[in-house]
Amino acid sequence: MSQPPERLDPEFEKVVRASFARQGLMASIGAWLLEVTPGRALIELPYSMKVSQQHAAFHGAVIGAIADSAAGYAALSLMPPESEVVTVEYKINFLKPAIGAVLVAEGEVVRAGRTLTIAKASVSCREAGAETGAVVALLQATMMRVSG
Amino acid sequence: MSQPPERLDPEFEKVVRASFARQGLMASIGAWLLEVTPGRALIELPYSMKVSQQHAAFHGAVIGAIADSAAGYAALSLMPPESEVVTVEYKINFLKPAIGAVLVAEGEVVRAGRTLTIAKASVSCREAGAETGAVVALLQATMMRVSG
Amino acid sequence: MSQPPERLDPEFEKVVRASFARQGLMASIGAWLLEVTPGRALIELPYSMKVSQQHAAFHGAVIGAIADSAAGYAALSLMPPESEVVTVEYKINFLKPAIGAVLVAEGEVVRAGRTLTIAKASVSCREAGAETGAVVALLQATMMRVSG
Amino acid sequence: MSQPPERLDPEFEKVVRASFARQGLMASIGAWLLEVTPGRALIELPYSMKVSQQHAAFHGAVIGAIADSAAGYAALSLMPPESEVVTVEYKINFLKPAIGAVLVAEGEVVRAGRTLTIAKASVSCREAGAETGAVVALLQATMMRVSG
Repeated sequence: MSQPPERLDPEFEKVVRASFARQGLMASIGAWLLEVTPGRALIELPYSMKVSQQHAAFHGAVIGAIADSAAGYAALSLMPPESEVVTVEYKINFLKPAIGAVLVAEGEVVRAGRTLTIAKASVSCREAGAETGAVVALLQATMMRVSG
Repeated sequence: MSQPPERLDPEFEKVVRASFARQGLMASIGAWLLEVTPGRALIELPYSMKVSQQHAAFHGAVIGAIADSAAGYAALSLMPPESEVVTVEYKINFLKPAIGAVLVAEGEVVRAGRTLTIAKASVSCREAGAETGAVVALLQATMMRVSG
Repeated sequence: MSQPPERLDPEFEKVVRASFARQGLMASIGAWLLEVTPGRALIELPYSMKVSQQHAAFHGAVIGAIADSAAGYAALSLMPPESEVVTVEYKINFLKPAIGAVLVAEGEVVRAGRTLTIAKASVSCREAGAETGAVVALLQATMMRVSG
Repeated sequence: MSQPPERLDPEFEKVVRASFARQGLMASIGAWLLEVTPGRALIELPYSMKVSQQHAAFHGAVIGAIADSAAGYAALSLMPPESEVVTVEYKINFLKPAIGAVLVAEGEVVRAGRTLTIAKASVSCREAGAETGAVVALLQATMMRVSG
């Protein structure tokens, strides 16, 4: 992260977890927010039929969904109280088929501004029991702060 | 579409509909392929709790999912027999909240090459019974042909 | 353009032309602002060695430069007085080599918001004397209004 | 870089430097190729009036140009002999004004495939004599190999 916020919201983790909990889609696909630290968020999604495509890999749409969410929550973690985060746009490159037991999206803030935050996310896919996996997608996004 | 293919696969609609049918995610969110013509595909998705976010609007992830699919199937419609289509990357701008009864993604080929196809998609959201709606998102994508 | 501004700056053309004139790079590569109407801007660039790459085509960097400028000035044309426009991000797809006598970028606003404007641009390349040319690149961008 | 190439072209540096030398635009703006290693390329550009915009900062178009080039040459460094590299598309976020004496673009391959290579670039701007600078832009791109 290029610049730490002047004043971190001491409730940032609670704010991010509450917002995540309201996202029905994340629950319905089985994703959970593993960790949130200032400027960084980790989301995990175990493999299931609900999130697959025809070749027994994770579907691109869920890869995009958790990458976007991880980037957005990384951004929200640095925003002042009473903020909500909205995705202005993102761009995602798919690098290889996402075959494995668990998909992990790591979102990270690149620059936090007053109105706009630029964030990126890296999505990797690992086998059950493995510590790391191959990077399967990269996202770069613009997030906007709106008053909650 | 900037250049019509020299030889259109006469079975293109069947090929596209068969591929769409294998995408479990599209069925599970309730999307259907309304229409496919050479270089163009229309996907519709009625509103339901499954595809909502916290503010009773369509979730960004499903907007991205049907936009990507519409662009991909527009691309596939112009490919030679025995092709499959893979999304290399896409970029999407979200223009306004997607509030309405039906979300419609219109995918269109911009340039069809031998290996790569550039396509775009426009997503609009309309009220029940309305003929048109507001554009809520724009996507620009690179698709790759792979042998099926 | 999805929504016309409530109040158009009556001086919009003067504002856009003055901003364009301050951009040294546009002059140094030989580009001019052909036309600006509310939500739309046209920039032309004749071929010269200064803007070529190794294969006697227009260089990708100048294609990006005039596409970005056309989108930015389309956005600025709809902004209130005392505004300046800043490019937050853009994404560009190159469709084919830009071979011809004149490169033309047409920028168009997709959605004009109070702070952010989403715009797109289409770049085409035509032979001397021709009325139209082939589309060689497509850009999608996010522009931000800042107080001048 | 996620996967090293099976066989690195032993002449990769010569190939990349020869291609860079043919790009008239790079020379005309004063950019040079500082370093190229397998999967990575560094381009530097000193400040001059030629590359400025109205506020005495580096112009966005030259930021995009050297970012795209750094990503492209990072990609080319891993390609087999007799290859050329073409930019399919890129997306760039501008993070802050690029004010300083030297602009540096660091391109890096994320995934090298047989036909397509995904690469990213980070552009930073530093004062004269400084060792590091602030990141001013981030690029994510798709490059294609074509036979030279």
